[in-house]
Amino acid sequence: MSRTPAHPARDHIQLPLVLDCLSDPTRLAIVCSLARHSSDTDMCCGDFSGFSGKSNLAYHFMRLREAGLVMTRVKGTTRYMTLRRDDLEARFPGLLDTVIKSALADMEPWMPPGCSLVRENADETF
Amino acid sequence: MSRTPAHPARDHIQLPLVLDCLSDPTRLAIVCSLARHSSDTDMCCGDFSGFSGKSNLAYHFMRLREAGLVMTRVKGTTRYMTLRRDDLEARFPGLLDTVIKSALADMEPWMPPGCSLVRENADETF
Repeated sequence: MSRTPAHPARDHIQLPLVLDCLSDPTRLAIVCSLARHSSDTDMCCGDFSGFSGKSNLAYHFMRLREAGLVMTRVKGTTRYMTLRRDDLEARFPGLLDTVIKSALADMEPWMPPGCSLVRENADETF
Repeated sequence: MSRTPAHPARDHIQLPLVLDCLSDPTRLAIVCSLARHSSDTDMCCGDFSGFSGKSNLAYHFMRLREAGLVMTRVKGTTRYMTLRRDDLEARFPGLLDTVIKSALADMEPWMPPGCSLVRENADETF
């Protein structure tokens, strides 16, 4: 059985919080990874174990959830996450795609060590 | 005679710093105002006197300059600013316009008191 922690409703997602959330390199790398991941399955916290320490990651996941960027469900001790693409597109059309494309085209200088995101094609559609 | 403080070169403008800069409501309101202003003339610090206190504004102007969002020149005790549209568009295509459109469509809930930005048409091209 899984439980779902609190998430902001679509209309309560606020631009300053979203931008603040995306301004952290580790969170931006997590969002880019989620965007490139198959939409058929959630990603879990273990998929990001190389990005940062466990407690730091738990903090980043919380910030992403509270800002309305990801939907999180918890099963046992594992968090599963998906990007809230539809909600974000409805609130801020084009924003998420633009940020992700900019990030993928320019990640190397600021990406934290361990964020081994593979850049396949920066022009792809997310 | 005017002097020009240090600005990051186009290639040194970094996405996380730009997003962090835009995540502050007052700075976002300043950027939206600059985007709506005629490109024929610079805006000066006095144009934003209702947005915040003088020392806070000086700090926000510094952050905007250091992140590469605005070009600043100083004449006497007055700072004049323009948005670095071309540099930002070259580095992060579409990002600035998308953020500004999202902000103008959704400013009311988070805009600081005193930021009396007039919303004329959220669909206009900046």
